[in-house]
Amino acid sequence: MGNILIKNITAVTMSDSSGVIENAYIVINGNLIEYIGKEKPETEDFDYVIDGENKVVMPGLVNTHTHLAMTLLRSYADDMNLQDWLFNKIFPFEDKLMADDILKGSEIGVDEMLAGGTTCFNDMYMFQAETGRVALKKGIRAVLSDCVNFDGYDRKVKLMETMAEEFKNEDLISFTFSPHAIYTCSFDVLKKCSDYAKSNDMSIHTHLAETQTEFDDCVKERGMTPTEYMETTGIFDSPTIAAHCVCMTDNDLEILKKHNVSVVHNPISNLKLASGVAPITKMIDMGINVALGTDGASSNNSLDMFEEMKVAAILHKGITLDPTVMNAWTVLKMATVNGAKALGFDNLGVLKQGYLADMIILDFNSPHLMPNNNTVSNLVYAAKSSDVEYTIVNGKLVYNRQTKDR
Amino acid sequence: MGNILIKNITAVTMSDSSGVIENAYIVINGNLIEYIGKEKPETEDFDYVIDGENKVVMPGLVNTHTHLAMTLLRSYADDMNLQDWLFNKIFPFEDKLMADDILKGSEIGVDEMLAGGTTCFNDMYMFQAETGRVALKKGIRAVLSDCVNFDGYDRKVKLMETMAEEFKNEDLISFTFSPHAIYTCSFDVLKKCSDYAKSNDMSIHTHLAETQTEFDDCVKERGMTPTEYMETTGIFDSPTIAAHCVCMTDNDLEILKKHNVSVVHNPISNLKLASGVAPITKMIDMGINVALGTDGASSNNSLDMFEEMKVAAILHKGITLDPTVMNAWTVLKMATVNGAKALGFDNLGVLKQGYLADMIILDFNSPHLMPNNNTVSNLVYAAKSSDVEYTIVNGKLVYNRQTKDR
Repeated sequence: MGNILIKNITAVTMSDSSGVIENAYIVINGNLIEYIGKEKPETEDFDYVIDGENKVVMPGLVNTHTHLAMTLLRSYADDMNLQDWLFNKIFPFEDKLMADDILKGSEIGVDEMLAGGTTCFNDMYMFQAETGRVALKKGIRAVLSDCVNFDGYDRKVKLMETMAEEFKNEDLISFTFSPHAIYTCSFDVLKKCSDYAKSNDMSIHTHLAETQTEFDDCVKERGMTPTEYMETTGIFDSPTIAAHCVCMTDNDLEILKKHNVSVVHNPISNLKLASGVAPITKMIDMGINVALGTDGASSNNSLDMFEEMKVAAILHKGITLDPTVMNAWTVLKMATVNGAKALGFDNLGVLKQGYLADMIILDFNSPHLMPNNNTVSNLVYAAKSSDVEYTIVNGKLVYNRQTKDR
Repeated sequence: MGNILIKNITAVTMSDSSGVIENAYIVINGNLIEYIGKEKPETEDFDYVIDGENKVVMPGLVNTHTHLAMTLLRSYADDMNLQDWLFNKIFPFEDKLMADDILKGSEIGVDEMLAGGTTCFNDMYMFQAETGRVALKKGIRAVLSDCVNFDGYDRKVKLMETMAEEFKNEDLISFTFSPHAIYTCSFDVLKKCSDYAKSNDMSIHTHLAETQTEFDDCVKERGMTPTEYMETTGIFDSPTIAAHCVCMTDNDLEILKKHNVSVVHNPISNLKLASGVAPITKMIDMGINVALGTDGASSNNSLDMFEEMKVAAILHKGITLDPTVMNAWTVLKMATVNGAKALGFDNLGVLKQGYLADMIILDFNSPHLMPNNNTVSNLVYAAKSSDVEYTIVNGKLVYNRQTKDR
């Protein structure tokens, strides 16, 4: 860590007031943005200087829902019926995973994310201390949760507390508390998770209303939708990040809005697993905070937020038959500042003085980005993860495309 | 051109009988595949030798519907209402285009396609001789048509005939005849196009049933669907490539099947323009030949067949709520051999002895392709255009990622 100057670059700030600044200068000092604007600093005496000609800088992408170590299951089971996929392929594979496997899977995942411009991820899986160690080693910002399902509550609380102790001095690591879903946790377990989160001032990260089966089963068993049922557990009294939210009634959306629940949209995973399409445009119209995630590589099969942005932007146009919804700026916000907000950061996801210096620099000097009639459109509809030339997290250059340093 | 040896590679042949060959050898002699199989040639005395370790070879991608020079309009007009987009942005821009612009736009487009693994494209636009010259210079296989709309029939026939003469000795260049669509050509013009194609033994390339507006207007004006109406013009008596086919009745599908019409699916463009989702799984079940295309960069905004494959594969799972449809092998066929078949090639799109040597080699040594549990799945769901390391067209190496030679 030291200080970095980025000069003469197109800065897509993701601030509604600042918008896009052409020929911008950015000064990074320590882990913060010290300056962003049109003024050229008087000196170029910095530890590292990046010339921004033909380049674009934007806040680092926030992958707000993933299961990182599931990279191990990439291309392991595709094009299958959901039950067959889960019970005959995924669960038996996962049953054999040990800490060393999670380490390896996390390494692959972090390498993929840093090379593709993701600077922060919100993970829910097992052996999360391993994932935390990988994140620290490679320099990515991580929000971790060793998720609770079936009868694992006590063990998971212990694991989370050990992890909190191990990483207590680390800027890059924070935590949520994760009951997996209503169909893997009893009411009693959900209630305990809710109470724990409240007592410990933690956010909740959970799956919600991902499939029609989950929805139908819940209504049949309990006379309530998954969202209505989740509300009765008290979970939503803590700040909550709810992944998927595909099967939602209008009342369900009102419940999310009332409790300020953040939704994570995972369009590629939802399509690939044939779960359907979440009513994201309705949520946005209601003012619900919607972030973006890749889900795990077993159901995506990438951890590529550029792909996720493009699919999110085009899918809802095609489904609602309205080409004006989910415009490029809206989708970029989902992938940056909305994710940061969901994770409880109030100084992340925007290029702004005093904010955390998590940002990515893209090389726009490629045929597939020519001509650059509109930088914001090009970022969402034409840029690729492979265009990321530099990834900076917490003020530190952690990926350089030229040298493949990670 | 000379001879090339590719050794010790994973070959995804796209032949249903050969499937995937591990540790394969491929010998290219002139513009043809002389050998593919497990036998190591006795000599390595070739003009060029490619070591296939950690690499995958597959047939080059066939972009079966595009408007190449529309790269000029990339990021020029996004997130807009269709009528506003067409009449206030696209048409006024296109009205000013001259031959030099088409040359420039085609250069950008060919560079993007070769770098992304597309070895053949089916174009429909204006000043197509310019696009043909670019294709020849850069070494990509092109199928061209200077499209007929409104009252341009006579002029376009003349242009097409001049072009046919210019390129008559060029292996890489062939032609279709293109009436633009039913809403831009009168019945009389469509009939003349049909007669011309029949007399000259040409295929037809046209837009069909792209939007609900086109469908509704046609039913209102003529009491027929666009497909029924197009049948009455005689167009389908020639081999026909119909792009889009979003709004189709069951009877429309029967008509396509009866006439062996090939459909080009353009999922990204159809979503982005809010046209909807074509009933592709029904077409495939009926045995209709379905190929894949990007459409123009003004409505995509990329010419990236890897993106197109992934979106095609996941979209129909999500829409039909069946994760087993559009499996990876099916989608790869759409992007290769089905496109070749649509364009009338009987020796393209499969890695097979005696076939045209159009192929691409991907570097699988990247985090986002690890682990490689299934090569075919990884190609569709995880590989990116940036993984293409070598592009070979007609036996000639025309793109090398290392040197960026094009």
